[in-house]
Amino acid sequence: MRRAKSCGPKGTGQKGRAKRDGQDSAMKSITLLGASGSIGQSCLDVVRQHPQVFRIEALVAGRNATQLIKDALEFRPACVALADASQAPAVAHALAGQGIEVLAGRDGLLEACQRPNDICLSAITGIAGLEPTLAALTATRRLALANKESLVCGGSLLMEAAQRHEVAIIPVDSEHSAIFQALHQQPRKALRNVVLTASGGPFRTWSADAIAQAKPEQALAHPNWDMGAKVTIDSASLMNKALEFIEALYLFDLQPGDIEVVVHRQSIIHSMVQFHDGSYLAQLGAPDMRSPIAYALTYPDRAALNVAPLDLMTLGRLDFEAPRHSDFPLLKMAEHAWQEGPAAMIAFNALNEEAVAAFLGGRFTFGAIARVVVEGMDKAWNQPIGGLSDIQDADKSARRLAQERIARYAEA
Amino acid sequence: MRRAKSCGPKGTGQKGRAKRDGQDSAMKSITLLGASGSIGQSCLDVVRQHPQVFRIEALVAGRNATQLIKDALEFRPACVALADASQAPAVAHALAGQGIEVLAGRDGLLEACQRPNDICLSAITGIAGLEPTLAALTATRRLALANKESLVCGGSLLMEAAQRHEVAIIPVDSEHSAIFQALHQQPRKALRNVVLTASGGPFRTWSADAIAQAKPEQALAHPNWDMGAKVTIDSASLMNKALEFIEALYLFDLQPGDIEVVVHRQSIIHSMVQFHDGSYLAQLGAPDMRSPIAYALTYPDRAALNVAPLDLMTLGRLDFEAPRHSDFPLLKMAEHAWQEGPAAMIAFNALNEEAVAAFLGGRFTFGAIARVVVEGMDKAWNQPIGGLSDIQDADKSARRLAQERIARYAEA
Repeated sequence: MRRAKSCGPKGTGQKGRAKRDGQDSAMKSITLLGASGSIGQSCLDVVRQHPQVFRIEALVAGRNATQLIKDALEFRPACVALADASQAPAVAHALAGQGIEVLAGRDGLLEACQRPNDICLSAITGIAGLEPTLAALTATRRLALANKESLVCGGSLLMEAAQRHEVAIIPVDSEHSAIFQALHQQPRKALRNVVLTASGGPFRTWSADAIAQAKPEQALAHPNWDMGAKVTIDSASLMNKALEFIEALYLFDLQPGDIEVVVHRQSIIHSMVQFHDGSYLAQLGAPDMRSPIAYALTYPDRAALNVAPLDLMTLGRLDFEAPRHSDFPLLKMAEHAWQEGPAAMIAFNALNEEAVAAFLGGRFTFGAIARVVVEGMDKAWNQPIGGLSDIQDADKSARRLAQERIARYAEA
Repeated sequence: MRRAKSCGPKGTGQKGRAKRDGQDSAMKSITLLGASGSIGQSCLDVVRQHPQVFRIEALVAGRNATQLIKDALEFRPACVALADASQAPAVAHALAGQGIEVLAGRDGLLEACQRPNDICLSAITGIAGLEPTLAALTATRRLALANKESLVCGGSLLMEAAQRHEVAIIPVDSEHSAIFQALHQQPRKALRNVVLTASGGPFRTWSADAIAQAKPEQALAHPNWDMGAKVTIDSASLMNKALEFIEALYLFDLQPGDIEVVVHRQSIIHSMVQFHDGSYLAQLGAPDMRSPIAYALTYPDRAALNVAPLDLMTLGRLDFEAPRHSDFPLLKMAEHAWQEGPAAMIAFNALNEEAVAAFLGGRFTFGAIARVVVEGMDKAWNQPIGGLSDIQDADKSARRLAQERIARYAEA
């Protein structure tokens, strides 16, 4: 095991820092992909708490024009970009005369990503985050990575591009941030293994039958974390942990046997590492995404942040149990997909994205998500994957299959 | 708060490494104070696992000639020293012709401490460890400190001497090792506070009356750690945590308000630190002193060690509760002693050492330990403390008072 080169401390890069007229050049400029989502909004709150340290270079969002306009007026970025081009005129109108460039559509979005910046926070959900993240690597010095699907679907491509462009990757997912913090400047050869914690989601104690019949509002009731809909559903199925498992393999250059998944319902220990001397370091904290976001922005320093301290005495206990693999089959599929190779990981993610969307659209109950994914993974996903277009082709192919399966379960 | 200068990573010092004929100069030489005690024996087991990395320069013990001879024959140090001079002839006889120098008594012991070495592990119990530890600072590059009483009684003296002699202090107590590991190369200004965990000892759930009436065999039954008698009794009274509280103030340059003591009965989380961003790092492990000893010997590296890994799923839970200050009054006295100053801390330790010895000698039940200490601390302990002789005078004075009190309770 060795630490991925792009995931460690970074020397002074070749790229200059982006600078706007009249702004302190010591300030760090941030390009925020997925600005109107849960992670994006938490990042803006961190920036709000440290206006002398950070400034926003670009805000990139999908469809939420209202939030984008509001945030643009507060944070005054050089540029905003909206994937949904149909709403661009409204954004341009609202920001007229503000000196903020308004871009839209795929090309506008990629153009925004390629503006020079110090830190790019990639927080677009799903494989949709991959292309903008790859584009951003050409223009940034640090990638704060919250979009796990871009690693799951394009891990090799992303890690190689980061290395080529001398971009440090700092994980933002609370689990991977925990591992990164625990490993901080420890000799990497000292690492024995990683304990990845999982909350177990809202169905942790439910019977298999009850899980199968669950409705969206039940799956959306996450016990600890307030997150977007897609990741909350993935937490309920443990697919989120499966994606994180693959993410950890790439980020920390591990093998599947190096990672143990433990269900820890309170989500206080965000993950831990064991060293060769039998000593463990764990990162703990209140379930507040602002902590790992701030760490990714400030590493190797830490910025003061008004998140609630832990009150262990009131909390009383931390619990641990084994995952119920038979009732949550997607977790184990991560290892299978990893062993099968890149196309299988792309299919794994695509099947799940489609199934989750169908579930949230009310087309079937919760149990069908795992059935769509598990059955879809029976196919031999072994076509060679080179660049982005191969990934997108494999993704489309898996989505087509997913839609066939979804139609079957929705009819039933 | 700033980190004590002597408690951080060390540059290349001026002192050469000790070297014996025919031995690899890259090997680290260790002088072991308290060789026949629990920590000393654990240290020898670490050395046994890494014969290519460490060699023993000197073994220093108190009275246990049998163990000293056995260890000398196994580890072949350059020198052994026994505090109890009456047994020196027997040791000299047993080691005759082995090329091992045999020293004895106070002077012999100090001579052994002053032989050049790379690492001195100070593990003599009680204030008896202070003078040898101070002597060792003139001859070593790293002090692996397990003798908490030398910090409690001579903290300023010891920290200053370590700085003067350019000796790095690496804590060995599991709690302080945990804090040291969690702080590892983090920017010290990022530290918010420290959570010092306590097992609560064998009387954690006992009624006040039952605690007061407890006998030595009950107090010696520590739930988690296998340690020497003195520290086990101190764990039962929470005096051990009081001493560690003061130790942490010195080691990490903290103020009392920076430390929160939490009872954690499983002793798995050995302590933790909170940073300014609300993130905590905790060090965890099986209760095995070989881990923190090995870390103190190998820092900043880590050596492979055959200690049992944690099995969180079998363990099931980690519990936390507030200390019962009214039933364990010694813990809170640490802060009082610290505020009163050096003489009060010396008295605090001396009163306890005498009371524990009397308890172990069967002179009274457990409750009298705290009464001897608390009542003894009523006196104004405020004489100025300069060097070692002042410390020894204050220590004697407190021991005299302790003996008066002990006689009274023993008669009752």
